[in-house]
Amino acid sequence: MATVSHNRMGNKYIEQTVHVKNPYLDTMEEDILYHFSLGTKTHNLPDMFGEIKFVCVGGSATRMKAFAQFIHLELNLPGNAEELEDICKGTDRYCMYKVGPVLSISHGMGVPSISIMLHELIKLLHHAQCCDVVLFRLGTSGGVGLAPGTVVVTEKAVDYSFLPQFEQVILGKVITRSTELDEGVAQDLLQCSSELQNLPTVLGNTMCTHDFYEGQGRQDGAVCSFSQEEKLEYLQKAYEAGVRNIEMESTVFAAMCRMCDLKASVICVTLLDRFEGDQITTPHDVLVEYQQRPQVLVAHFIKKRLGLIA
Amino acid sequence: MATVSHNRMGNKYIEQTVHVKNPYLDTMEEDILYHFSLGTKTHNLPDMFGEIKFVCVGGSATRMKAFAQFIHLELNLPGNAEELEDICKGTDRYCMYKVGPVLSISHGMGVPSISIMLHELIKLLHHAQCCDVVLFRLGTSGGVGLAPGTVVVTEKAVDYSFLPQFEQVILGKVITRSTELDEGVAQDLLQCSSELQNLPTVLGNTMCTHDFYEGQGRQDGAVCSFSQEEKLEYLQKAYEAGVRNIEMESTVFAAMCRMCDLKASVICVTLLDRFEGDQITTPHDVLVEYQQRPQVLVAHFIKKRLGLIA
Repeated sequence: MATVSHNRMGNKYIEQTVHVKNPYLDTMEEDILYHFSLGTKTHNLPDMFGEIKFVCVGGSATRMKAFAQFIHLELNLPGNAEELEDICKGTDRYCMYKVGPVLSISHGMGVPSISIMLHELIKLLHHAQCCDVVLFRLGTSGGVGLAPGTVVVTEKAVDYSFLPQFEQVILGKVITRSTELDEGVAQDLLQCSSELQNLPTVLGNTMCTHDFYEGQGRQDGAVCSFSQEEKLEYLQKAYEAGVRNIEMESTVFAAMCRMCDLKASVICVTLLDRFEGDQITTPHDVLVEYQQRPQVLVAHFIKKRLGLIA
Repeated sequence: MATVSHNRMGNKYIEQTVHVKNPYLDTMEEDILYHFSLGTKTHNLPDMFGEIKFVCVGGSATRMKAFAQFIHLELNLPGNAEELEDICKGTDRYCMYKVGPVLSISHGMGVPSISIMLHELIKLLHHAQCCDVVLFRLGTSGGVGLAPGTVVVTEKAVDYSFLPQFEQVILGKVITRSTELDEGVAQDLLQCSSELQNLPTVLGNTMCTHDFYEGQGRQDGAVCSFSQEEKLEYLQKAYEAGVRNIEMESTVFAAMCRMCDLKASVICVTLLDRFEGDQITTPHDVLVEYQQRPQVLVAHFIKKRLGLIA
């Protein structure tokens, strides 16, 4: 939904509000965002969230708290970054931190878990009348033919057959949704990476699977029915289809953001090269540094958008 | 894998060990259970877990900690139930508590999240040489034609087309696995429920979906494309196929346990009747009491199996 507004210099511009695709929502007397432990009657959502311009999501609660503290310092905001309050403290399903115009939320692992969070997040942004919001998924992934520690900005989020689509079941029927992401944001992120040290970054396709072991061709799960040769053949096919990393949430993230007119980008660091193995054996402190890379990249993007750096 | 052993009375009986279906696992020098922050070289898994006979899993970390404290009291074990240590404290993906022969683990929301946990749990039980283990999923669910607060012991875990199967993608190909659960354990649980007060319990089919909103026919998500009539028609079809509740993990739980010769049961309480609505509006304290019902039922089952009650 687009409305004409005015910026500080008095120029007209188009404000993009968050567009829920549900004709019933605005007829409801109350909307309980159950998995956030928030609601339209119990919370003043426009007051709490109206100023949000950037939403950063990631699987791990600890990591998304660390990101909230990091962006608090980066934006030089008043108050103590160590004392940020979890807005979803009434539930243990997700955690959520607000830092100025930035919202940092955890989403757990896998498509179903992030999909619940996205439904409730998009409703929250809608109820709060937020405008011009950009969403980022900051994640970890397995690399395909890349050195561990490489950041992949997703060009296309693809499924197990390397197609840019997401299958959604609605009342027992399977439909297919496009997983196109915002090209402009991806290009801006690549530009940001070139301005930073120690942030090897590539644009590539990201394969989204529904499990970590068999679906990703790992031979170290409780169940494995294929040979090393078959595994490498599949990874090679993925590589030839432009896949540079594998994770578990990108297709539904892309599909839902696209349906609701939200600009979105997926930025994942690779923890290992899947051509080299399955197990994550990298020392803990190195993994911690890798996981900060998407955060550093997105923080730089946000600071540029806010005009804090040139 | 079955081996002949002797019980305390000197009688021969068949011990059922945990059967991984992966020929490569025992050739690995080390197995890092990454999402548990445990490993075969860093931890003595037989010492830590060898005595486990019952594994109880559920979505919420808070709930599974509460269950661990509850079963500690129920089994009258020494030590302070308030001071149980999270065995997975090195990660925030899952939490895990050991209480005598009982392991209580959280698995997050959705098939992918529980599937990662199950791969690593089954490997853990295998490495620890556990025998005769029974698994329980203790969850919450939407009811189909049942009063809220009813406990459903799953007869068949079915997919969105009401079939008792789980679709697994392996190297880009979709295969189908059976989701049969243990009939004996389900019948024993029903018997337990008849011995307890205030535990309305039924045997019924459980539908497992991959999201909470569109896949379950909810009209209160960020996206909804169907009418109230179409929704009720789908729920009615589900009811006629024997579905009594809807949740998000049962099919993969059943399929993986079955593949690895683990007896398993799914016990979920219904928080609402989906014929009556979509939103969970029940007061918090009532929801808390509902969520204790599967715990009370499984605790009774465990105490009977351990010979603590007749």
